[in-house]
Amino acid sequence: MREYIVHEVMRKTLITDGDKEVVSGNTRLTYSELYSRVLRLANSLKELGVKKGTVVGVLDVNTHRYFELHYALSMLGAVIHTINFRLPPDQLVYTMLHAEDKWVFVSDIFAKAISQVADKFENWVLMTDNPEATFPAKNVYHYEKLVEQGKERELEEAEKVHEDDAFSIFYTTGTTGRPKGIMYSHKNILIGALQLFHHLSLHRTGAKVSNEDVIMPLIPFFHIHAWGVAFFPAYVGTKLVLPGAATPAEQVKLIKNEGVTWLNMVPTQLHMLLNEPEFGNVKVLTGGSPLTSGLATQAVKRGVKFSLIYGGSDQLGTAISVVPSGISESSEEATEWLRKGMKLLPMVEASIRDDDGNEVPHDGKTIGTLWVKSPWLPMGYYKAPELSAEAYKDGWFRTGDLAFFYPNGLLYVAGREGYAVKSGGEWIPTGILEAVLSEHPAVEHVAVIPMYDERWGQRPLAVIQARSEISETELRNYMMNSVKEGKIAKFWIPDKFIFVDEIPLTSAGKLNKAILKQKYSNL
Amino acid sequence: MREYIVHEVMRKTLITDGDKEVVSGNTRLTYSELYSRVLRLANSLKELGVKKGTVVGVLDVNTHRYFELHYALSMLGAVIHTINFRLPPDQLVYTMLHAEDKWVFVSDIFAKAISQVADKFENWVLMTDNPEATFPAKNVYHYEKLVEQGKERELEEAEKVHEDDAFSIFYTTGTTGRPKGIMYSHKNILIGALQLFHHLSLHRTGAKVSNEDVIMPLIPFFHIHAWGVAFFPAYVGTKLVLPGAATPAEQVKLIKNEGVTWLNMVPTQLHMLLNEPEFGNVKVLTGGSPLTSGLATQAVKRGVKFSLIYGGSDQLGTAISVVPSGISESSEEATEWLRKGMKLLPMVEASIRDDDGNEVPHDGKTIGTLWVKSPWLPMGYYKAPELSAEAYKDGWFRTGDLAFFYPNGLLYVAGREGYAVKSGGEWIPTGILEAVLSEHPAVEHVAVIPMYDERWGQRPLAVIQARSEISETELRNYMMNSVKEGKIAKFWIPDKFIFVDEIPLTSAGKLNKAILKQKYSNL
Repeated sequence: MREYIVHEVMRKTLITDGDKEVVSGNTRLTYSELYSRVLRLANSLKELGVKKGTVVGVLDVNTHRYFELHYALSMLGAVIHTINFRLPPDQLVYTMLHAEDKWVFVSDIFAKAISQVADKFENWVLMTDNPEATFPAKNVYHYEKLVEQGKERELEEAEKVHEDDAFSIFYTTGTTGRPKGIMYSHKNILIGALQLFHHLSLHRTGAKVSNEDVIMPLIPFFHIHAWGVAFFPAYVGTKLVLPGAATPAEQVKLIKNEGVTWLNMVPTQLHMLLNEPEFGNVKVLTGGSPLTSGLATQAVKRGVKFSLIYGGSDQLGTAISVVPSGISESSEEATEWLRKGMKLLPMVEASIRDDDGNEVPHDGKTIGTLWVKSPWLPMGYYKAPELSAEAYKDGWFRTGDLAFFYPNGLLYVAGREGYAVKSGGEWIPTGILEAVLSEHPAVEHVAVIPMYDERWGQRPLAVIQARSEISETELRNYMMNSVKEGKIAKFWIPDKFIFVDEIPLTSAGKLNKAILKQKYSNL
Repeated sequence: MREYIVHEVMRKTLITDGDKEVVSGNTRLTYSELYSRVLRLANSLKELGVKKGTVVGVLDVNTHRYFELHYALSMLGAVIHTINFRLPPDQLVYTMLHAEDKWVFVSDIFAKAISQVADKFENWVLMTDNPEATFPAKNVYHYEKLVEQGKERELEEAEKVHEDDAFSIFYTTGTTGRPKGIMYSHKNILIGALQLFHHLSLHRTGAKVSNEDVIMPLIPFFHIHAWGVAFFPAYVGTKLVLPGAATPAEQVKLIKNEGVTWLNMVPTQLHMLLNEPEFGNVKVLTGGSPLTSGLATQAVKRGVKFSLIYGGSDQLGTAISVVPSGISESSEEATEWLRKGMKLLPMVEASIRDDDGNEVPHDGKTIGTLWVKSPWLPMGYYKAPELSAEAYKDGWFRTGDLAFFYPNGLLYVAGREGYAVKSGGEWIPTGILEAVLSEHPAVEHVAVIPMYDERWGQRPLAVIQARSEISETELRNYMMNSVKEGKIAKFWIPDKFIFVDEIPLTSAGKLNKAILKQKYSNL
């Protein structure tokens, strides 16, 4: 019986789609050529002592080498630590020490910076085109030499790899305290990723996917394997384009030259790409933060068909937006549903609960905390059993997100518990406030966070990054119109508006509410 | 962590698609109503002692009750024996005794016939609309009364059900000896079924499926749960139409009245439906025997978009036909690929081997025996460990089918080993011969089987059911033209043609080559 093991997804593709390409910088490889490189790399690493359970850190943008490493390490049963390069340097090194990386694979882009801790880790592999590249450590290998020298043969497994064995570790930005490492098994990460693409192919949604697509992940591999793009193209047999460190302008060129049809990215990246006049006519899976109505409308005008995903590194994919039956896919209503109405992935169960643990009605407004259950919940937090026990109970994961169900059963995620506003005992959905404010032409970015209020406990505060001049009074009047139109409740209008030059971003490219909260909340 | 357990596939659907319908005879139920019936049935059965591991036989055509039973028995951890009602009576009873059915669920259609063995089984449940129906056994229950009397609440699991526990047993027609029982776990049967539909949604193929389809299985539930249709509609949330014992003419009415868009059936059923002038404009998944070129062309003319599946009860789904990239889906070439060029399902590995166990080249002609590996291979043969050990080795299943790979990696299945012809050490693909012969306007059905030959070992023999008068000489001349056109080799032409009034069918609706071979082969 075959198990769900990462490197096994590629086998069938070698038979039917072995001639499809993986494109990365100046490198073009067919899957067959790439698989031969994977085999040779795995054999070299095996001879150097990498084996089942060895933790291997990887520090790179999305390249073919990073892609290959997924498969080579899977063959060995090694555990890939996808290093979150957007963490501040201290925290980044902390994660490498915490994960106890025995090997570190690093590309040119990051080599210089990381060389400061060269002596802290035993083995280094340089992922570079330059055979002369050096690194100030004792055991330094060249990726391409390992590939060149390796034997091209299937590995005889020293110790059998099973689907429930660990495959990867990823550290999330710690909003409080240290980053947390989340561990995934082969089965978690594969079934979770594949269900996401199956959902996209089975439903009426923007980012519908098929084996004819050409896929380019703008989500970095370190972030849950680019939301599963490290596996899906090899699984179904599609051309894969890896953008490396391409700028938005260069990404647009790649889209055009390589015929890219399907991408994933966070809303901030979508925003940047829409600033490129030639960007458009592609399918985009986006998520990680709310997609504002303004951005959605702008995307549709440019021929971008999008879907919104809800999930997270400690739950993987949970829901993806769809157009409900009976609504034309080209209507404005469809666009509205696609940016907020999420359908649970098959096999997922979700429950929205009030403070007493009771399920809230599916009435399109009663907000509670979201709990989810699925076959791909991660193994837990690495070396933190008490954290795991708290978050994962009786098969349920407590997401820490606030949400409600529309009467049609679609899910709306209103924001993180810590950043939502509870005013006089009532939740105020900051996501909706942000969406409404973002539709104002003068607003570039907006984050709504809670601030301390003596009377109500909390009240909303809006932090605005403006595109052009705008006053608080104008924004208040604008919001009053939204109240009249029935879009928001009057008591949701923020008590305070703060104008800033630039809202800081998190390592995942989202608006960094943690910093704003620290600065303005007084909570 | 949620596991792949049959009744869990329906939960998400209750949230978003609980109002979609299951239609069966005069009964119309929403999934929400149906789930309530399932809960009540399960609670009643629990009180009567049905528990984890209890084997429950079911004897019915495709109805809502049979569909419900899948979910109720899953909740209890009971094992469903889907009784193959197309077996000869003696063999049918043999399977019930071999499986040790503790309970038998039987519908009106089969009640009278099976009452002859009423004393051989302990508990009987009548699946009937008639509250006055009787049955000559001691413990007789009425399905609808069990539903009526049951408590509507989630079951407290007495003993936890796991995804690797047995869910069902199905007995295949034994071509030699007794029928063999194949046992499936929850995970086998679910992942196998779902992958099949995922493949259909991800590829360019005729029977593409989505959550907007209305699905009607013409494959009976007893046959691997109607090729997974017992699960997929509940999983993705589609309307389900269950045809009961409808005749082809009645099936056509159902298609029209209920808006059916997607069906599955064997080629023989497709042939019968095409005799109905109003049949057409639907998607059809077919398989189980080769789809002849004549039938395929006729189907396309009527607006039937089809896909061919290759698999079997002891391997589940393995491959589904697709249109290769670069070929227009509306071309004749596309139709040809769809009736013979099978793409492996994701996660499947296949190997075609010669008699020495070496892989044959992927050259579109070298035939060998097909071995497959997948995450959903069954648990094995029930109470026959020696048979299981022989068929399932090192994770591989030896299919007993002859096949070759086209250079593009698509698979062609040439026929069962026992029915293929090995002439002078060379395999003759009987499927191709049958396809060519079936294109002759005078040929209604054709089966090519091996016959003993002193010189060559075996030679092909064609059994013909003619539509209109035709002589052997005419058929030989016709085949010589195919030789000239390069479709077949000259030495493939059958040595003998036998004309019969009707070729007998197997319990699965396929041409019964076993009988023909017994009668004519002299092997």
